[in-house]
Amino acid sequence: MPYIYTRRVNYHETDQMGVVHHSNYLRYFEEARTDFMRTVGLPYAVMEARGILMPVLEVACRYKSPARYDDELTIRSRMNELDAVRCGVAYTVHNQEGQLLAEAASKHCFIDKGFRPLSLKRSAPDLYEVFAGFYEPDAP
Amino acid sequence: MPYIYTRRVNYHETDQMGVVHHSNYLRYFEEARTDFMRTVGLPYAVMEARGILMPVLEVACRYKSPARYDDELTIRSRMNELDAVRCGVAYTVHNQEGQLLAEAASKHCFIDKGFRPLSLKRSAPDLYEVFAGFYEPDAP
Amino acid sequence: MPYIYTRRVNYHETDQMGVVHHSNYLRYFEEARTDFMRTVGLPYAVMEARGILMPVLEVACRYKSPARYDDELTIRSRMNELDAVRCGVAYTVHNQEGQLLAEAASKHCFIDKGFRPLSLKRSAPDLYEVFAGFYEPDAP
Amino acid sequence: MPYIYTRRVNYHETDQMGVVHHSNYLRYFEEARTDFMRTVGLPYAVMEARGILMPVLEVACRYKSPARYDDELTIRSRMNELDAVRCGVAYTVHNQEGQLLAEAASKHCFIDKGFRPLSLKRSAPDLYEVFAGFYEPDAP
Repeated sequence: MPYIYTRRVNYHETDQMGVVHHSNYLRYFEEARTDFMRTVGLPYAVMEARGILMPVLEVACRYKSPARYDDELTIRSRMNELDAVRCGVAYTVHNQEGQLLAEAASKHCFIDKGFRPLSLKRSAPDLYEVFAGFYEPDAP
Repeated sequence: MPYIYTRRVNYHETDQMGVVHHSNYLRYFEEARTDFMRTVGLPYAVMEARGILMPVLEVACRYKSPARYDDELTIRSRMNELDAVRCGVAYTVHNQEGQLLAEAASKHCFIDKGFRPLSLKRSAPDLYEVFAGFYEPDAP
Repeated sequence: MPYIYTRRVNYHETDQMGVVHHSNYLRYFEEARTDFMRTVGLPYAVMEARGILMPVLEVACRYKSPARYDDELTIRSRMNELDAVRCGVAYTVHNQEGQLLAEAASKHCFIDKGFRPLSLKRSAPDLYEVFAGFYEPDAP
Repeated sequence: MPYIYTRRVNYHETDQMGVVHHSNYLRYFEEARTDFMRTVGLPYAVMEARGILMPVLEVACRYKSPARYDDELTIRSRMNELDAVRCGVAYTVHNQEGQLLAEAASKHCFIDKGFRPLSLKRSAPDLYEVFAGFYEPDAP
């Protein structure tokens, strides 16, 4: 079941087309991911404190309809990929009328503070177990 | 031949990982696109004044290596898709040492100020002709 | 009594100093102002729809202590200036430990969509009345 | 003599009022400051590498007239305050028609990576000397 994050559009996120600038969706996705992690007891701040970073390897987004100032966005996130060294998240964004605004996906790896790849499964099996509990692959 | 845009990384574009926040690349690509349009005599401000907008339909980016504060980035853009109603651009980002940092692509449609799709070819054949002169599809 | 807006710090708002980039506070203040307006029944989106804009004329901020990723910020806003054509807001920012992070003030005028100054009192007396109910000048 | 930094307005810096969002000026000032430091042989990246940070203590900005997309901004910076532990910079922003858009000032202190204040004069006299050569106090 996807995790739900709601978020109102701020004025400073619009551009002169009168809609949310497309780059801000990547920030909304990050907020949704980190809010999810906080909720499941793995705040990203704690991961960083334990020396584990989760940079973005890839991101793709399809914009269906524009988000506007003051819209109340609902962002659904689902961890659709997970192995020892990487994970992926799929997202949808809807507005307050239930209209689909965007679909997206991001992929991440786990690294240490020296930017060296690490196996989450081996380095932090407790964190890996929490992630594994939320892993929900795409339907075949 | 790709169009080249160079751009130094600003401090406010970094995050606490000590690298450029991944969302900023989408802004760099927009800068590269609009700089390209200015150079070929089609400033985006003029397009907007003629009532033609070019929103982003899709974007995808693969991050290979992080950009850091003060890096001098070279962004190469190539219009790899073009028809009457849509276009696409492919990008690469390198740093001052020639290291590939990111590869990306964006797709756009042409719309009027009421957000209705339009045919650039029919509505503004002069602009379409300029674009067509720079169209360079992916090698088969 | 100041209006209270709470806001968690997002990762994309930090910079490589490991703290919130100072420019983001101005965005937090805007969020606090518009959240206040929504709460008192004057959503800024409605003001804009009625043709009234409230641009920033001046802003000043003193940064006392840095905000960090994941901090839960409490922003107190108080409308400390109001006349027919202008208003001002004073702000404080505290973190979850009650530490004062910043003090600030912004001044605004009322204009129409052609950027011509207008008297809120005359153009929209109902809105002016709501504002007046929250006006709380600085203690002498 | 003020240091001059020129900078075109990017689309992603506008908001739905059709002008540059006021928070972005603080980013332009930072760019102007760091460009100045690079030019005088003190790149901020080098200062950070030597363990010296220069956070913003205060900022104040008066917005006179809006900057618009594609405007070519000229930002003049002058170091109008300097002592062993702090410095200040005054800024003006003009557009391509020579119109004054904003006036501003920022104040900074020198700190180490543990966020402890330091005396630039004592810790890095060579850097202090360069700064001192550009110190130009306000006319009395």
